[in-house]
Amino acid sequence: MADPIRFHFDFSSPYAYIASRGIDALAARHGREVVWRPRLLGAAFKAMGATPIADVPLKGPYFMREFARSARFHGVPYFQPTPFPVSTVSAARAFLWLDARDPAAAKRLAGALFDAYFVEGVNISPAEVVAAIAARPGCDAAEVIAAMGDRAIKEALKAEVDAALVAGVFGAPFFFVDGEPFWGADRLDQIDLRLAQGGF
Amino acid sequence: MADPIRFHFDFSSPYAYIASRGIDALAARHGREVVWRPRLLGAAFKAMGATPIADVPLKGPYFMREFARSARFHGVPYFQPTPFPVSTVSAARAFLWLDARDPAAAKRLAGALFDAYFVEGVNISPAEVVAAIAARPGCDAAEVIAAMGDRAIKEALKAEVDAALVAGVFGAPFFFVDGEPFWGADRLDQIDLRLAQGGF
Repeated sequence: MADPIRFHFDFSSPYAYIASRGIDALAARHGREVVWRPRLLGAAFKAMGATPIADVPLKGPYFMREFARSARFHGVPYFQPTPFPVSTVSAARAFLWLDARDPAAAKRLAGALFDAYFVEGVNISPAEVVAAIAARPGCDAAEVIAAMGDRAIKEALKAEVDAALVAGVFGAPFFFVDGEPFWGADRLDQIDLRLAQGGF
Repeated sequence: MADPIRFHFDFSSPYAYIASRGIDALAARHGREVVWRPRLLGAAFKAMGATPIADVPLKGPYFMREFARSARFHGVPYFQPTPFPVSTVSAARAFLWLDARDPAAAKRLAGALFDAYFVEGVNISPAEVVAAIAARPGCDAAEVIAAMGDRAIKEALKAEVDAALVAGVFGAPFFFVDGEPFWGADRLDQIDLRLAQGGF
């Protein structure tokens, strides 16, 4: 089988949420799998001297309506959560912990976290909330709480964030298809074409 | 006939160039016309505290390959010009001058300017270069030079730039379809869907 697609996401990115709903099915149509990698947008923003999009003059008001419109365009339910964005450190740690044991279960956890934030409007920042949501795909809440506080998991996330920066991942969703980088849910059509034709 | 689509562009924006190649045909399929409005990205960047994309760490290297890829995706020829970006004050003034007399001719001039920069790699910043290119759609070079130095044209461009900022136009291409704002060549598909369905 050809190399898997790498899907970098932050749990507080609306476009990563939108892409998360379709990327595995898109890849499967071309006989590909998808590796999901959590990251923290804040680290890239710091490297770029950027601020969260909602706070940028002119751009902020546009995107606060664009998120929902793009979700409709992609046929995905969307609720604009507040606060926005939120820290997703605990969510990313829980994902990494589960991913090391069972990548498929980790994707289900990611789906549950995205839904909690972008469909139900639940603030997924607190560790207790992440642990409660992790119960949906069958995790033990106490075990998740312990994992999120585990030094090895903390360091694994730090390594993940650093590696993403080195690879040039500056936003979310960010994809690599056979080494070719794509940024944004609005590049899913280009990814689809590339997978179909092996380039364009 | 329904209201025309407003198309805001800067002559040094690769995505505005890509969109310029298809927006009139897209609109015509839905019985719409397009009003082209030149602007200067620098003014919006200043309001946002932003820097030209090519100079942003991480983002810059990505976009220097993304421009050409998106052009291929849209079936448009593309040459990465240097210097990039360039000042497009003279080009925008020439456009505004011609647009007030003959909007169709002004679109032909805009096409010639975009082609000169993004197909031939000609630096379209100098007024003499703009005047020479304006001869392609039949303008008199001396008349264009005089127009670009005309105080009324200078003030018209300033008013255009200010009005775009007030309307929330922060990038290029930027479109308004019945008041709904769309940013980017990657929103042409959403514009198409909206025109087909009157919303989505």
